[in-house]
Amino acid sequence: MNNILDNIRIVLIQTSHPGNIGSAARAMKVMGLSDLCLVKPRFFPDDQANALASSATDILENATIVDTLQQAIADCRLVIGTSARHHRTLQWETQDSRSCGASVVKQAQTGKVAIVFGRESSGLTNEELSHCHSLVHIPTNPDYSSLNIASAVQILSYECRLAAQSAEASAVCKTEDERVSSAEMDGYFKQLETVLIETDFLDPDKPRHLMPRLRRLYSRTGVNRSELNILRGILTAFQKKN
Amino acid sequence: MNNILDNIRIVLIQTSHPGNIGSAARAMKVMGLSDLCLVKPRFFPDDQANALASSATDILENATIVDTLQQAIADCRLVIGTSARHHRTLQWETQDSRSCGASVVKQAQTGKVAIVFGRESSGLTNEELSHCHSLVHIPTNPDYSSLNIASAVQILSYECRLAAQSAEASAVCKTEDERVSSAEMDGYFKQLETVLIETDFLDPDKPRHLMPRLRRLYSRTGVNRSELNILRGILTAFQKKN
Repeated sequence: MNNILDNIRIVLIQTSHPGNIGSAARAMKVMGLSDLCLVKPRFFPDDQANALASSATDILENATIVDTLQQAIADCRLVIGTSARHHRTLQWETQDSRSCGASVVKQAQTGKVAIVFGRESSGLTNEELSHCHSLVHIPTNPDYSSLNIASAVQILSYECRLAAQSAEASAVCKTEDERVSSAEMDGYFKQLETVLIETDFLDPDKPRHLMPRLRRLYSRTGVNRSELNILRGILTAFQKKN
Repeated sequence: MNNILDNIRIVLIQTSHPGNIGSAARAMKVMGLSDLCLVKPRFFPDDQANALASSATDILENATIVDTLQQAIADCRLVIGTSARHHRTLQWETQDSRSCGASVVKQAQTGKVAIVFGRESSGLTNEELSHCHSLVHIPTNPDYSSLNIASAVQILSYECRLAAQSAEASAVCKTEDERVSSAEMDGYFKQLETVLIETDFLDPDKPRHLMPRLRRLYSRTGVNRSELNILRGILTAFQKKN
């Protein structure tokens, strides 16, 4: 899991309050993240940043300081911008914080990913947004959506940790109880369709969306190998009886 | 959703740093929570609390201040204690923050629920733990698990908001596409078992866990009414053919 989390970079752009940088460093370290990049911070290094970082001062000491977002993300294959507003009308794809954790972790398994946080007052500029592949929105109270920047770092770092844990767990689970491929499921549905036609349950001239509905039922759950063996065995037993 | 979130009380016990009370209030309000109860706070009201609450000072003004945890939770049907340590060897059931959101929201649909946070330095006493029905643990970096109390409030309030959103969504989904009851699924499995015996796929003397495995497959996904009609229709067509 540490390899994945090491590949996730938190980028803070022109942070005004150094205390927020310190709190963000602590929020990162508690969740196992370590790569902090600061774009033109207003005050840094700073005593208040150190005080609020608590025992995460190593994150501050190792932080990279650069002049532009481009420099911060040069080696990243995925760049996600954080946004307090919904950019539905704009060109950026927006995902919520939970699915963001999953997509970040997926990419971070093989390369660097950046999550970019804008200024406390005004967020990211349109120029900065143009460097992001997608945006993430943390669900908040519509009447008061003023999430502190370190709290936003905390929530997204937490989602990354949970997604990394879950990626590890499913990697283990996959080898133990592997889901079958779509091609194998296609083979099952082909046999099922044949049996349903043979038993006059399905009229090939009036299929009434029957097969798509059965497909949806099984694709919702995901079928593993031993289950597919049972399902195919049942169909074969029917065909022998007829 | 607001009704659910209004029923969730955040209880802070003997908080030493008033800034943490203010940050906790902001963290709550951003996620739509409003019920804050302080057990013997060291300094309150306090200027630093107000400063860090930002525009969530209404939460501080309406906070209840009491002397004991018992008073704070008197009207609550579910009380969850937060714990930095894993209490595996102890008698308390421990859940992670994600499943905590779901169980809190489930109870908060019909009554008051409390999430209790202990002192910054030493957490909850054993006497206080004895008033909790279960404990919640937020996954953290094992090498540095020092999560700030306001950050812990932030993460759990966030999980409550997401669980409340999801409860609302599934309530809508339920009326549109209602899942069938276990009794109805039992009826299906009874008919399936009969058909499998008739086709010699299932030997009633050597059932080989076949029915439990099929039950698990369908219970993973949940079956709705129109799908159950299809599944039963297929079995009836088989029985007619034989």
